Amino acid sequence: MSNLREECGVFGIFANETCDVAKYTYYGLYALQHRGQESCGIVVNDDGLFNSYRDVGVVNDVFTSERLATLGFGNMALGHVRYASEDSTGRNNAQPIVVNHIKGRMAIAHNGCLVNSYELRNELEMKGSIFHTTTDSELISYIITEERLKSKTIEEAVSRAMYRIKGACSLVVMSPSKMIAVRDENGFRPLCYGKLPDGGYVVASESCALDTIGAEFVRDIKAGEVVIFDKNGVRTIDEHIGKAPNKLCIFEYVYFARPDSTIEGCSVHDARVKAGEFLAMEHPVDADIVMGVPDSGLDAAIGYSKRSGIPYEIGFLKNKYIGRTFIAPGQATRVDKVKIKLNPISSVVKGKRIVLIDDSIVRGTTSAQIVKLLRKAGAKEIHMRLSSPPFINSCYYGTDIGSKENLIAYRHSTEEICKIIGADSLGYLSLENLNKTACGGSCGGFCTACFDGNYPTEIPPERPKNRYDSKISESKNI
Amino acid sequence: MSNLREECGVFGIFANETCDVAKYTYYGLYALQHRGQESCGIVVNDDGLFNSYRDVGVVNDVFTSERLATLGFGNMALGHVRYASEDSTGRNNAQPIVVNHIKGRMAIAHNGCLVNSYELRNELEMKGSIFHTTTDSELISYIITEERLKSKTIEEAVSRAMYRIKGACSLVVMSPSKMIAVRDENGFRPLCYGKLPDGGYVVASESCALDTIGAEFVRDIKAGEVVIFDKNGVRTIDEHIGKAPNKLCIFEYVYFARPDSTIEGCSVHDARVKAGEFLAMEHPVDADIVMGVPDSGLDAAIGYSKRSGIPYEIGFLKNKYIGRTFIAPGQATRVDKVKIKLNPISSVVKGKRIVLIDDSIVRGTTSAQIVKLLRKAGAKEIHMRLSSPPFINSCYYGTDIGSKENLIAYRHSTEEICKIIGADSLGYLSLENLNKTACGGSCGGFCTACFDGNYPTEIPPERPKNRYDSKISESKNI
Amino acid sequence: MSNLREECGVFGIFANETCDVAKYTYYGLYALQHRGQESCGIVVNDDGLFNSYRDVGVVNDVFTSERLATLGFGNMALGHVRYASEDSTGRNNAQPIVVNHIKGRMAIAHNGCLVNSYELRNELEMKGSIFHTTTDSELISYIITEERLKSKTIEEAVSRAMYRIKGACSLVVMSPSKMIAVRDENGFRPLCYGKLPDGGYVVASESCALDTIGAEFVRDIKAGEVVIFDKNGVRTIDEHIGKAPNKLCIFEYVYFARPDSTIEGCSVHDARVKAGEFLAMEHPVDADIVMGVPDSGLDAAIGYSKRSGIPYEIGFLKNKYIGRTFIAPGQATRVDKVKIKLNPISSVVKGKRIVLIDDSIVRGTTSAQIVKLLRKAGAKEIHMRLSSPPFINSCYYGTDIGSKENLIAYRHSTEEICKIIGADSLGYLSLENLNKTACGGSCGGFCTACFDGNYPTEIPPERPKNRYDSKISESKNI
Amino acid sequence: MSNLREECGVFGIFANETCDVAKYTYYGLYALQHRGQESCGIVVNDDGLFNSYRDVGVVNDVFTSERLATLGFGNMALGHVRYASEDSTGRNNAQPIVVNHIKGRMAIAHNGCLVNSYELRNELEMKGSIFHTTTDSELISYIITEERLKSKTIEEAVSRAMYRIKGACSLVVMSPSKMIAVRDENGFRPLCYGKLPDGGYVVASESCALDTIGAEFVRDIKAGEVVIFDKNGVRTIDEHIGKAPNKLCIFEYVYFARPDSTIEGCSVHDARVKAGEFLAMEHPVDADIVMGVPDSGLDAAIGYSKRSGIPYEIGFLKNKYIGRTFIAPGQATRVDKVKIKLNPISSVVKGKRIVLIDDSIVRGTTSAQIVKLLRKAGAKEIHMRLSSPPFINSCYYGTDIGSKENLIAYRHSTEEICKIIGADSLGYLSLENLNKTACGGSCGGFCTACFDGNYPTEIPPERPKNRYDSKISESKNI
Repeated sequence: MSNLREECGVFGIFANETCDVAKYTYYGLYALQHRGQESCGIVVNDDGLFNSYRDVGVVNDVFTSERLATLGFGNMALGHVRYASEDSTGRNNAQPIVVNHIKGRMAIAHNGCLVNSYELRNELEMKGSIFHTTTDSELISYIITEERLKSKTIEEAVSRAMYRIKGACSLVVMSPSKMIAVRDENGFRPLCYGKLPDGGYVVASESCALDTIGAEFVRDIKAGEVVIFDKNGVRTIDEHIGKAPNKLCIFEYVYFARPDSTIEGCSVHDARVKAGEFLAMEHPVDADIVMGVPDSGLDAAIGYSKRSGIPYEIGFLKNKYIGRTFIAPGQATRVDKVKIKLNPISSVVKGKRIVLIDDSIVRGTTSAQIVKLLRKAGAKEIHMRLSSPPFINSCYYGTDIGSKENLIAYRHSTEEICKIIGADSLGYLSLENLNKTACGGSCGGFCTACFDGNYPTEIPPERPKNRYDSKISESKNI
Repeated sequence: MSNLREECGVFGIFANETCDVAKYTYYGLYALQHRGQESCGIVVNDDGLFNSYRDVGVVNDVFTSERLATLGFGNMALGHVRYASEDSTGRNNAQPIVVNHIKGRMAIAHNGCLVNSYELRNELEMKGSIFHTTTDSELISYIITEERLKSKTIEEAVSRAMYRIKGACSLVVMSPSKMIAVRDENGFRPLCYGKLPDGGYVVASESCALDTIGAEFVRDIKAGEVVIFDKNGVRTIDEHIGKAPNKLCIFEYVYFARPDSTIEGCSVHDARVKAGEFLAMEHPVDADIVMGVPDSGLDAAIGYSKRSGIPYEIGFLKNKYIGRTFIAPGQATRVDKVKIKLNPISSVVKGKRIVLIDDSIVRGTTSAQIVKLLRKAGAKEIHMRLSSPPFINSCYYGTDIGSKENLIAYRHSTEEICKIIGADSLGYLSLENLNKTACGGSCGGFCTACFDGNYPTEIPPERPKNRYDSKISESKNI
Repeated sequence: MSNLREECGVFGIFANETCDVAKYTYYGLYALQHRGQESCGIVVNDDGLFNSYRDVGVVNDVFTSERLATLGFGNMALGHVRYASEDSTGRNNAQPIVVNHIKGRMAIAHNGCLVNSYELRNELEMKGSIFHTTTDSELISYIITEERLKSKTIEEAVSRAMYRIKGACSLVVMSPSKMIAVRDENGFRPLCYGKLPDGGYVVASESCALDTIGAEFVRDIKAGEVVIFDKNGVRTIDEHIGKAPNKLCIFEYVYFARPDSTIEGCSVHDARVKAGEFLAMEHPVDADIVMGVPDSGLDAAIGYSKRSGIPYEIGFLKNKYIGRTFIAPGQATRVDKVKIKLNPISSVVKGKRIVLIDDSIVRGTTSAQIVKLLRKAGAKEIHMRLSSPPFINSCYYGTDIGSKENLIAYRHSTEEICKIIGADSLGYLSLENLNKTACGGSCGGFCTACFDGNYPTEIPPERPKNRYDSKISESKNI
Repeated sequence: MSNLREECGVFGIFANETCDVAKYTYYGLYALQHRGQESCGIVVNDDGLFNSYRDVGVVNDVFTSERLATLGFGNMALGHVRYASEDSTGRNNAQPIVVNHIKGRMAIAHNGCLVNSYELRNELEMKGSIFHTTTDSELISYIITEERLKSKTIEEAVSRAMYRIKGACSLVVMSPSKMIAVRDENGFRPLCYGKLPDGGYVVASESCALDTIGAEFVRDIKAGEVVIFDKNGVRTIDEHIGKAPNKLCIFEYVYFARPDSTIEGCSVHDARVKAGEFLAMEHPVDADIVMGVPDSGLDAAIGYSKRSGIPYEIGFLKNKYIGRTFIAPGQATRVDKVKIKLNPISSVVKGKRIVLIDDSIVRGTTSAQIVKLLRKAGAKEIHMRLSSPPFINSCYYGTDIGSKENLIAYRHSTEEICKIIGADSLGYLSLENLNKTACGGSCGGFCTACFDGNYPTEIPPERPKNRYDSKISESKNI
């Protein structure tokens, strides 16, 4: 129900033999679908011949069985799911992108957001470069291509490119014969790899994608690491490792990642349960039940219940059949949109003092509607608890919040927000404790800029909006 | 994950004025989608002109915004979602059906299964009747039409028809000017009605559909009752009420109905929690966590945890993006189908003694796979608990189980089943306690034939299979 | 470009063995597509199991290769293409219809229009019959079913039914083991049969469908004849033959049938060329070129040119890519709809005195636009010639003209029409000569009621419009 | 029925005000559909914002009314229809392409084929360029972009680019504020412009597209001319004009162009009639009728008839309902594919000595099947006449013939071909006379390399096939 969106999920497979890599990728993308529902794509590498398909839509809609069959077999494949911000929607911007350059073909799937894309684009354009899309992926493929001219190998080119690109960049590159996985020096976005039962390797944004296809988790790609998968096995270029502090986006634990994933050695579910526990300590309240807003508040609700001793309950029924083509109720009906998706279970909430757990409040409108639904269903008191601190700053590393003005916590105090959403009390998890949720903070540093404004990198200047951002567009799939 | 299927959900709206009844029905069907995903349909009544659309598929696929718009506005509408057994699939059998007879048009939406359909069909055919479908709905519309010739009103015809049809029949009939809701004398399937904020009425299989569109629940239709909605308001024909004992299908509480629905005054969620509590008393075990199989085992798991004191945990991540067109992994991949849909959260289950709650075991294959997944994720012990007794008899009232031979409990003892599915222990809820879950049994009698073989009606003779059942068919939507 | 519409084309195949009868039918329907573009359907009979698919749309859209494959193989099949008048559109009314009755399954494909359908429907309804559609086919299947109860065989039932149904009825009936082809006693609509190279038989509305699949034309079904195809070969029930005068719709030659078809021994193309020749004799004019309005005026233009000695020319380019989903130009553009479809070839028409041949004028609007296009392209004189007499009466046998008021010739004299469409002269073929076009009139009688009002049967009373006609409807495919 | 394919049709509109330019383009593409049926696209320019959609399929399939609506209004638009050779199919290669460069956005629609694309691509790649497609359009957009860096205006950049690109290039370029139409110095492919009734201009491959939308033809773009359309009206850069001899592809008159188009002042229909006349003089024969193979042989048949005095006849019925998704008959049926599309009219051909006119023979297989069909329908003699000389050389300017080995005339003498196709005699039009068909040859020079091997430009070296051509691909729309 949140309005925060992660920008992407990436997947890559290097098999030991020609097989149905498209289908492995298809299942991998299903597991990563929560990271982006705007468009998706798969590119199969059949011994150097690249066969790709990308379109607007979720995996289930884009890849029919006929469509998947046209991709054929191969020994490598890349996949991508994408959420797109307003200024880069459309089929054209779908990934993975596939390009030809002097050394042949290359495919790229990228998760993250560069902070120097404007400068890089300008530099390239001054040399006569043309851009088909508004994606960082295209930019990155240019940079790699330029470096390729000065390098002996594709991995060398990728490594050299890392000196030029700044910001969040979890990347998988596929050449005719190699798959290369890269994470920027801060490691903003997750990326890990695993081993297939028959040999061969899989790279994915989250470990849940490895689980799905039966691959065994090996380890996270390190911040700054370049890992090469080819017929000789796995090897690493480590020259960027340790150059900058680890700054994994902490919001991956709070909301983005799937609870069954493990990132940097910490279970996402556990981190959320832990957050719920801290929340119970920071903001205790006398109440009858604890319940979470499905699905993002459920894990933390378990933690709050455990620590507080207040019974955990299932207080909402979430309609699981609402799909992309759902038709919102308009003026002609008196139907409440949130109610269609989320129905309170009256017998659970009636007359109860409720602790209601969610991961965060962005605009506040959904929270207000949910509180209203519960009141109408007879809730006596509603104590809202959020498993993260107030979200008050823009993110330049891949989380799309539109304008800062959209953030209710940027404009209002906690007391005001409590009133606006109509709760009886409101409590945010402190940043201090949030930092301890994932493995008790032992696993390394996080980027918490959205909460405290400490940006690990330079931040991009205000870009002239009327230049590229919304000027090129393409009809969405309908 | 179950293999048991309810056959239908019905919805009807009688508005006080011409409005977007199609859209109300659309949202109502979304709320009832769990009762049938094979086909669906809506018929709008615009002052006597019936405009309908039916097709194979879920609401989200069948009703695009263009499609919905073609149905136009009206003052009444019927809707239907359907699960179809093997011998009656296809677009032709989708409901509501719309027919013309001597007095004009009539639409019918039916949930249930008649036990004398073979006799009725024979009788009608001897008079020259023809059948376009293999549905009970068509049969019922014939019977009502015959009675209409001898009756002054449509409601009289419907009431007379009830003497001829035997079995489960929750029915909504729409004539040019009236909507009539009917429940058979045993009341096998649920049916209730509510009031719209602006006046007007809504009939639905479950109360959750009333909630969804903001209607206020009034009451259940009584077993044997015929309720008429027209411009004069609501009235009842009560001549069939009390003629036979109440025999609501108890499986509605166990599995079919949505937890946020209230049937015969009992919350479905509460009944399931209660079942979990009884289960904890009947089959206690020393364990570390209680977890439910999503989604049907979650509520009972809450109850088991509450009563036993063993902590409730979220142990599975269910992939919510798997749709109807999902392509199952074939021979060419080594991917496990269940794993794509259901991933154990390792950090939760690893090294744990687990109480695993589900509503029932039908074939046993899914349970076996789930147990295997948990073992692989490191579970130490798995104690399976079912919130209903062993399912051992055929149902003739609308639950499709295919052949009795499919039922693992029909062929095996509890000990054998425990071994087959690979659990450390296995416990079923007793029928005695199940009967007490819904309102402590205070709400009236249940049909429990699937557990104990006590059929409230005559059961149909073995039908000559090669006659109608599978002989007429129609291409499914592809 | 005409506004006159034939109501249907029928096709049936009885193969000697199980084979891809669906595909034969598919090709047959392609050949008959000009007889109806609103909906189509195929039903395959696989040894008694009927597998059918029907939908709104042309053959090319409805039958994808996946769809066709789902119909499977069989030894018999029926097909149907349909044009639907305003009051019976929609998927529900698509044919062939498939019903179950006391003796099993039956499928029916019908071309024509009964004149006593209102009486028959009333009679059936008084007995309790219900109707799913507004088609004559459903009515006919009821009548056959009633007679089946009193008959030993299906063919006897069909023959008995013919005493009860009045009007135009070219029919193919399929039972589990037989295919029966029937033509009403006047033989209003064509129907013929042929032999497959491997044995087996094909029935079709026009011989072009036989040509398409490589079947050898045997002969037309006679007016009043009932022909039975089964494992014993072909045989006839002749009791209705000769009971009434032959009254083949003469408009089949003028416009409906495909020029490469042969009906009652006369080539349709030849009849049209002949009409053009008569036209040249009846309405000679001093001109530079003769050209036809594509496609319906081309054959007659050849005849006019031949007889008059004025050179034949190709004066229009007809855009062949305009499909069903073509988006008509609206107010926002200044584009002429007719011009998109039909572009005059300037170099041909510029400065020329033109004889312009078409088959008929219905509303007159299209003719006026065409004349205007030619003037704009520089034509000096335009002499319009029609290869049929003024169309002034309603048809009750399957030609849909909407209201008589739509007919320009019903409201205006030839002189007035000439002025309205803007031609320099206008000439209609006389009925006397039209009667001589098909085989010089030697082939038997025609129904010419649309021209002279001599209806061969009683005509139906004005039907109470608010009863069935437009009251039941169904969303069109979108 | 031919196997020769033109590679593209282009369309551009510069309106005087914001209006439904997408719809004008849509109709323009309908008129140009014969020039390419593989993919199509439209890009709308709304005051600098480019909104585009491209996909595999014909205009009728790709642009539904919803899709067209998403393109919105604007003051300029480009459109493109494309036939794709084997090595560049797929949605990715669809045009117009839209790119961003240093000066903003640019869209390009191209018809033709460069002969130095390999060199240009190499040169660009050496500088680090990447390619998303295998089209010349992308190459051209790079060249224009490079020149843009050294130029004051976009038109200067386009003009400078023309010094670098060699071969066939009829191009429309759209910048935020200008539309620029270009034809290479030889003028291989046609391009013309016209004036809209309300002011504003239209550029199109053929004049028929101007007719369709009601624009008035102004003139052809000259070989080597760069025409700029902007708010100041129309102006020309003429520095490339006259640098090279006019070499319009003569096959545009023979087959590619629509008969109602006028190219370089000559009516295509007239040129074909003229070709028929010359053919009658060169290859006279004693026969009963002249008929053309629809649609490409019809115009020349008129000419042959006129000159020879042998009556013109319509001898084939071409099925106009066969669409892109037509399912070809397979092994399981004995149906003839050609027969489904083309049925001889028996009464016309039976017992006749026939002159059969077609535009050319490529592989010979279709001609052989047609001759066979006519024989089976009873033709006594078949004298095949082709309105062009034997096609024996590869084309490097946009006509796709696959390998030279496919050309029957490359491998066989006329006598041999006559035998292979089974005709009684065979006659080709001489090149000398073909050169006189269009305006008696007065209109300037033609490229006739496919007939005589005189290539007006250097021809490209054999390209290393395994590099780009078939290596990058994309799933076709299914």
